[in-house]
Amino acid sequence: MSIKTIVAALHALREQKPLVVSISNYVAMNNTANALLAVGASPIMAHSRKEMAELLSFSGALVVNIGTLDSIWIERMLFAVEQANIHNKPIVLDPVGCGASSLRTVISRQIAQAANKLIIRGNASEIIALAGEKGKSKGVDALDSSEAALGAARYLRETYQSAVVISGATDFIVTSIGQTQLDNGHAMMPYVTAMGCTLSALTGAFAAVGEETGLAAAAVLGVAGEIAAMQSKGPGSLQLNLLDALYLLDEATLIERLKLS
Amino acid sequence: MSIKTIVAALHALREQKPLVVSISNYVAMNNTANALLAVGASPIMAHSRKEMAELLSFSGALVVNIGTLDSIWIERMLFAVEQANIHNKPIVLDPVGCGASSLRTVISRQIAQAANKLIIRGNASEIIALAGEKGKSKGVDALDSSEAALGAARYLRETYQSAVVISGATDFIVTSIGQTQLDNGHAMMPYVTAMGCTLSALTGAFAAVGEETGLAAAAVLGVAGEIAAMQSKGPGSLQLNLLDALYLLDEATLIERLKLS
Amino acid sequence: MSIKTIVAALHALREQKPLVVSISNYVAMNNTANALLAVGASPIMAHSRKEMAELLSFSGALVVNIGTLDSIWIERMLFAVEQANIHNKPIVLDPVGCGASSLRTVISRQIAQAANKLIIRGNASEIIALAGEKGKSKGVDALDSSEAALGAARYLRETYQSAVVISGATDFIVTSIGQTQLDNGHAMMPYVTAMGCTLSALTGAFAAVGEETGLAAAAVLGVAGEIAAMQSKGPGSLQLNLLDALYLLDEATLIERLKLS
Repeated sequence: MSIKTIVAALHALREQKPLVVSISNYVAMNNTANALLAVGASPIMAHSRKEMAELLSFSGALVVNIGTLDSIWIERMLFAVEQANIHNKPIVLDPVGCGASSLRTVISRQIAQAANKLIIRGNASEIIALAGEKGKSKGVDALDSSEAALGAARYLRETYQSAVVISGATDFIVTSIGQTQLDNGHAMMPYVTAMGCTLSALTGAFAAVGEETGLAAAAVLGVAGEIAAMQSKGPGSLQLNLLDALYLLDEATLIERLKLS
Repeated sequence: MSIKTIVAALHALREQKPLVVSISNYVAMNNTANALLAVGASPIMAHSRKEMAELLSFSGALVVNIGTLDSIWIERMLFAVEQANIHNKPIVLDPVGCGASSLRTVISRQIAQAANKLIIRGNASEIIALAGEKGKSKGVDALDSSEAALGAARYLRETYQSAVVISGATDFIVTSIGQTQLDNGHAMMPYVTAMGCTLSALTGAFAAVGEETGLAAAAVLGVAGEIAAMQSKGPGSLQLNLLDALYLLDEATLIERLKLS
Repeated sequence: MSIKTIVAALHALREQKPLVVSISNYVAMNNTANALLAVGASPIMAHSRKEMAELLSFSGALVVNIGTLDSIWIERMLFAVEQANIHNKPIVLDPVGCGASSLRTVISRQIAQAANKLIIRGNASEIIALAGEKGKSKGVDALDSSEAALGAARYLRETYQSAVVISGATDFIVTSIGQTQLDNGHAMMPYVTAMGCTLSALTGAFAAVGEETGLAAAAVLGVAGEIAAMQSKGPGSLQLNLLDALYLLDEATLIERLKLS
């Protein structure tokens, strides 16, 4: 993956304005819809089994986020994954709080197992817990460094034939051809809720235009986030400045600010 | 409808602070509650059948928004419409994504059929799909111009004895006594999620004080939106500046900026 | 309760970053998660009975907010209260719209009855309705002055052995050792949705670090709110400036601005 690929993906996204079907959580839906619109994609938040096949037939990707899961929603998530498989659409799994409860761990694995074209996007604690290592996850915020989750990510990549994005102060993108490190973003971002969910949503939008490693989304959100943070005195301003930055982000700025290795 | 009627409606709304019962979607609830408060109304988001009759007995209007519908919510929506009919309250239907799935089309028509004092508020694609014409709706964002939906709106008005608001770059308000065109608003508004839902919520608030065409809400949101857009560099700022503009909007500014024809 | 106790509580919260489990409403979840993060706590929004015991075993408090209640959610709320009791965790009850429907009144009392370590946080109308006096609650916004609810609050304190926070232009904190009056806050705050829910969420975070009267949360939100309001021209700006102010609030400013009596 090179800078050129990332820029091309952003260009394609804004040209194609892909539809992204999201089964998300109650906290994040508004943020993720706004982020998708701001970057140039078109969100559709839906979960009913009575329309999922239809919506996935003409959408570009499915994002499944387990943030506020329960028995009713779990069935919907699994059904949607089945439909995305049938229509050969990429699926992004956001295993929110994986490791904080057995339920979250079990269901995350079940979704990962069921999904064909899969990208997993989690913080270090979630990735570690999903892989079954003894992580330190309590709650939904990461307690581990991204680097500590690299082994777990490689295990997930092999087990589920998926790309894996570990997000954190440093992001790692782990694919079958290796790993990429991204050092964009800002320390204030974790003080805004649903920032990880937002990354998962953007990952779906980029997957819909063919960028199925998760790198382009992490790069765009990281760069937009650090631009926004420079203009923000706290997480309230950051939340809105981030949407402005996603909307205004031009390719030259993206190239200039990217910290890839 | 004249400018005078619109201004009188805003005045009445701020004096009476009407209660608006909303059955909305997970994405839009926060935005619509905030918009109702900012303009001077009082929102109550509720859906349980165990309290709907009671709440509608002392509220001014019901807004039904199908944005994240499913079997459980559909029953609640239909029950609420029944109760609003019993209490002779105006009902605003927002057929989000009508045409994107058969489920949305069928349920929107069922609600429209059931509602007595009805205002339908949708974008052009939704209005066209609701009327049964071959629209171009994919997802929840409009792909047609408002003008293209005028025939559909007239059909809906006759079929359901309702007022119809087509929102878009140009808004059209279609009632039994003719149609009104409104050219306020701003091209950045569709980059904020739930903007249409917000218009439907405001339409409910104005209906609660007797303005049952939908024009006053479209006028107020259009003018507030264009004021907000002038102060915004992107959709993040726009979202908050819009709430400020709704809160601060005075009658003189409203009159000065209205573009009615 | 003295200023010193409040400042110590804020200090402890930021050091311990307590996990707060919230069963909240669809409108408020995003706001309350953001407010918890901004002040320095860690929110987990969850409701499934399949993970509640686990989550409450390592969390600091439970917040139950009935804002968009229904039969499905009521069972979850009661189950969560049971689990919080088992794990000896403080419970904050936000009886949103209590008095607006019988359902809300009945369920609020049922939760209050079930909870062991309880703090009740409501506006005057809700507190009056919960106590069974003839309040003036219609909808979810308060129609009574906080002072008018003092008798009701004392009754609730005795009936449920709970602390009671009446929030409004003036806040009253009623505990077994007396009552405290707080005159912080700003008249624009009720124009932002979920402000009361935000106070309940913060009350949970402070309870998690041992401040179980509700005063510290009311003090911190009141001071942050008035700082934010000074920088805001309307409720849109206020919403984001409040998160910034919570994040930036230092102990010296808190001490300087507190209006306790």
